[in-house]
Amino acid sequence: MSGRNIALRLRYDGTAYHGWQVQKTVPSVCETVERALTRLCGHEVKAVGCGRTDAGVHALRYCANFRTASTIPADRFPQAANTYLPDDICVTDAVEAPEGFNAILSCVKKEYTYRIFNSRLRDPFLRHRAYFYPSPLREDRMRRAAEMFVGTHDFAAVRSVGTETKTTVRTVHWFTAERRGEELFLRVCADGFLYNMVRAMVGTLLYVSEGKLEPEDIPVLLERGDRGLAGPTVPPEGLYMSGVWYDDPAVGAMMERP
Amino acid sequence: MSGRNIALRLRYDGTAYHGWQVQKTVPSVCETVERALTRLCGHEVKAVGCGRTDAGVHALRYCANFRTASTIPADRFPQAANTYLPDDICVTDAVEAPEGFNAILSCVKKEYTYRIFNSRLRDPFLRHRAYFYPSPLREDRMRRAAEMFVGTHDFAAVRSVGTETKTTVRTVHWFTAERRGEELFLRVCADGFLYNMVRAMVGTLLYVSEGKLEPEDIPVLLERGDRGLAGPTVPPEGLYMSGVWYDDPAVGAMMERP
Repeated sequence: MSGRNIALRLRYDGTAYHGWQVQKTVPSVCETVERALTRLCGHEVKAVGCGRTDAGVHALRYCANFRTASTIPADRFPQAANTYLPDDICVTDAVEAPEGFNAILSCVKKEYTYRIFNSRLRDPFLRHRAYFYPSPLREDRMRRAAEMFVGTHDFAAVRSVGTETKTTVRTVHWFTAERRGEELFLRVCADGFLYNMVRAMVGTLLYVSEGKLEPEDIPVLLERGDRGLAGPTVPPEGLYMSGVWYDDPAVGAMMERP
Repeated sequence: MSGRNIALRLRYDGTAYHGWQVQKTVPSVCETVERALTRLCGHEVKAVGCGRTDAGVHALRYCANFRTASTIPADRFPQAANTYLPDDICVTDAVEAPEGFNAILSCVKKEYTYRIFNSRLRDPFLRHRAYFYPSPLREDRMRRAAEMFVGTHDFAAVRSVGTETKTTVRTVHWFTAERRGEELFLRVCADGFLYNMVRAMVGTLLYVSEGKLEPEDIPVLLERGDRGLAGPTVPPEGLYMSGVWYDDPAVGAMMERP
């Protein structure tokens, strides 16, 4: 469709959805957003998201774009779209994007945050929001292991098979661990992610914490590309898309606002 | 039943429940806790809660007691009970209470916290957790109005009819408002609460914020005892039981721990 190209910044609680991607039988975030925008714009809307998120995965910052013939000013889209959206999905910002902008193809890097609730007892208010891990964490070991993932490597050892991709080489820009009280926030930024890559890397850091692997085993494991050597895929509820970067100044600035 | 009297400290997300109280057809927190303790103790358990909470109301601190013939040490109850509880209810502490201890009858005062999310846009992660109120709040007026409720008064003007009670006179010990970023936390402590009293008082503070009432109207409204003069009953999702006090040293100390 011709018309204006609108980029949205979204925030969503993914608990009730089977990820961003449109599924045939189950509700997806994309489908829910498209339905709201279709009602708002008065014509069928197709949205492009900045990446797949799996069932139960959340977004603190997510970018999607769509084309519209409507004359609604870009800055009116958040309030207007939210009227049609359920309370677990919120459009927090919108700008007019250049003709060629595409939320996934134009993306230069993305950050995910994995939230671990490291306490003796569960917290009912963190259900569906963080991964409950009651044993003590050896954070120094985890930080050293995380550093081993930084750089350009073949990440085939830390992905789930299921999505086709030309190459399994990616560049990880940072992978940090920040403790806040009883929670550990792991942040990883890369030019792109393979399927389940963040959850397999976090599972591998937990293996290192548990002494099942050494930080120095990470480069070996990456070189061998053997999924069986890495840690398990941790559950989706702790995972949040937390940053998306673009070269386009308008969309880039929108996504970087606090 | 004879046997030991165990006092539990609980924390729960009330979203999925029709309050603490046992209902005939819908799940209640009490019933869920009783079912878990019955499985754990190997005999039927009846629990006494420190107060009703309505459908959708949460608890940061809640006290319940029950009698058991089991020999499980008190300090083992939290971990053991949580094994049988769903993730939205958690026992965080347990002590052996004196024979005569009763979670509701022995209670000397209680505190509720009402959480208002005062932002231009909704937050998907505060759905079911806070009351979304997008208009600006006149907090000085709200604080002055809250002060007017403190003391011993007849609170008939700020309750919903539905529960029988000998008297509608209660003593409010404090009623404060604390801002944290985009949230306002209203804390009210009293020797006891009438049905929907906190939610009607909060609705009245919002009326004062909106200029529909003056802080000085509160004493008049309380004196007249006319529910029609006060503000509306605000939604349950912002309400949390946040404190319960007892004279008994063991139970009292358990409930006051951070």
